[in-house]
Amino acid sequence: MTKPSAGGRPSEDELIARYFAPIAGEGALGLKDDAAILRPRPGHDLVVTVDAVVAGVHFFADDPAGSVGRKALGVNLSDLAAKGAAPVGFVLTLTLPPDWSEAWLAAFCEGLGAAARASGCALLGGDTVRGPGIAISLTAFGEVPAGGMVERTTARPGEVLCVSGTIGDAALGLAVRGSSVPLWGSILSTQDREFLADRYLHPQPRNGLAAALLAHASAAMDVSDGLAGDLAKMMRAGGTSAVVDADKIPLSPAARAALTAEPSLFDRLVTGGDDYEILAAVPPERLDAFLSASAKAGVATTAIGTVTKGTALPLFRRAGEERRYERGSYRHF
Amino acid sequence: MTKPSAGGRPSEDELIARYFAPIAGEGALGLKDDAAILRPRPGHDLVVTVDAVVAGVHFFADDPAGSVGRKALGVNLSDLAAKGAAPVGFVLTLTLPPDWSEAWLAAFCEGLGAAARASGCALLGGDTVRGPGIAISLTAFGEVPAGGMVERTTARPGEVLCVSGTIGDAALGLAVRGSSVPLWGSILSTQDREFLADRYLHPQPRNGLAAALLAHASAAMDVSDGLAGDLAKMMRAGGTSAVVDADKIPLSPAARAALTAEPSLFDRLVTGGDDYEILAAVPPERLDAFLSASAKAGVATTAIGTVTKGTALPLFRRAGEERRYERGSYRHF
Repeated sequence: MTKPSAGGRPSEDELIARYFAPIAGEGALGLKDDAAILRPRPGHDLVVTVDAVVAGVHFFADDPAGSVGRKALGVNLSDLAAKGAAPVGFVLTLTLPPDWSEAWLAAFCEGLGAAARASGCALLGGDTVRGPGIAISLTAFGEVPAGGMVERTTARPGEVLCVSGTIGDAALGLAVRGSSVPLWGSILSTQDREFLADRYLHPQPRNGLAAALLAHASAAMDVSDGLAGDLAKMMRAGGTSAVVDADKIPLSPAARAALTAEPSLFDRLVTGGDDYEILAAVPPERLDAFLSASAKAGVATTAIGTVTKGTALPLFRRAGEERRYERGSYRHF
Repeated sequence: MTKPSAGGRPSEDELIARYFAPIAGEGALGLKDDAAILRPRPGHDLVVTVDAVVAGVHFFADDPAGSVGRKALGVNLSDLAAKGAAPVGFVLTLTLPPDWSEAWLAAFCEGLGAAARASGCALLGGDTVRGPGIAISLTAFGEVPAGGMVERTTARPGEVLCVSGTIGDAALGLAVRGSSVPLWGSILSTQDREFLADRYLHPQPRNGLAAALLAHASAAMDVSDGLAGDLAKMMRAGGTSAVVDADKIPLSPAARAALTAEPSLFDRLVTGGDDYEILAAVPPERLDAFLSASAKAGVATTAIGTVTKGTALPLFRRAGEERRYERGSYRHF
């Protein structure tokens, strides 16, 4: 059932030499072996995360290939950041449909390689297979001091919930792109719309925050499926609940402009996916140190609420109203 | 663009709890975190390999789901075996099409879990995504003593080429199944046909051979894309060539029966894929020790040729004839 590749197409070995070897790191053995070697520094654990992106589900088939490459790595870098881990490398499964083009692959690897270099996370190995559509599954590795990984399930009542960056931009970027809300043109400037579209297309993983999380956070996860849903997931995993002061949720000027014009967008901001921000629980006595260390690392973080006892869905308080999101996350599956 | 799952379907969290958590290992944190922890034993390196299988390319869409689960792990265990690595765990990306059934998933996880338990290779994490067809990308981890991984590119002229098990069974199993050679019924017994079909469906990764490879082999790889092509790849990677005494290539009784009836099948035996045997280069002075250690480990190995100087394609000598295989590997891509 396996088939030789179409005539004239480069072989997998040729593709490896041309596009993948240039972004390979130490331990990859030049991508000429069945396997790579990973040797964590003494006194360190490896942190492993896996996330896939599929055309038509996690990105648009006509998104620029370089953006797809950047996103495929970025969504995994975001998981490493949340764990306090410094990126060290990744392996890749790239699925290409029969009509793949070498130009697409070249651009994909350019975006992937740029993201890999920028984060110090080099390609260690991979597999390229044929399939019905473009899909990228990526397993990324990071390092933390032994026993130090910031877990998801360990938030305790009384701790402060903090979030990095701004929330909801990517959800608005997707909406702008899909034109699912009419009259964006009258609500948002061209610049705002471009900013939001970029936030959807290009996750900005918060790896700069890793050291501050390691030093001060008692639990963290990355926000990829919507703040409300991911917060609920984190609280449920630890047997806790939360109260969020929703007026404090950090919004970009573009998101704020959209929300001012259309207040009903709020739910979309906190339930839409693809933020790739970090949600952390920080003991109150460490809050100032955490916020200060984050700022020094160049990542703004904002206190938005408190971990509470109980197993209720997190409560969002906003302008005097209270709300719990029953289905706070979109599901990719 | 992301969508909630169809009504009535279990959520990803429910699927994790029901099907994946039971096969999760230490370090997986109950599959409730963004990431897993890998802590190689002191004095050991981690070996990382990634291989994907796609419905319609690497397996038939109507193959039993349990067999697909077993194969997805097996093809990666085979890579670990070739590197001399003891399996420690794996992460998984499972892509399911919109019409997936829970019965399929349950059977898949049963096969995967059985293979994981049998090999001591536990699930550490994963991602389940929607896509156009069933696909499984698996990243597996093994351990070797630090600096000890058996590489692919390090065979030296004068060393003996050895192969485990028997060659060509899976290629015949695929042919029997596809009925691409007429009159199989008159050539092969029902038992032989069932044996060959099983060899295609269920790789038998040679993890028992890892210790013998570590102790005695100077280079190794797993044979997954055909002996001729994979040998050529291994020799090319090391800047060497090879001479193979093709009459010594180990064949199962079923393959021998097929070859006796139809001598032209030989090329298919040595170029067909899915053997999942180990090809190793062993210094002559260690050959007896290697064969003996392999036998003690319950894996038959056979000397089939010699590494030679030069960069020519490997030469296969058989019954006085000589042959080089220009395109010795089927390509999955």
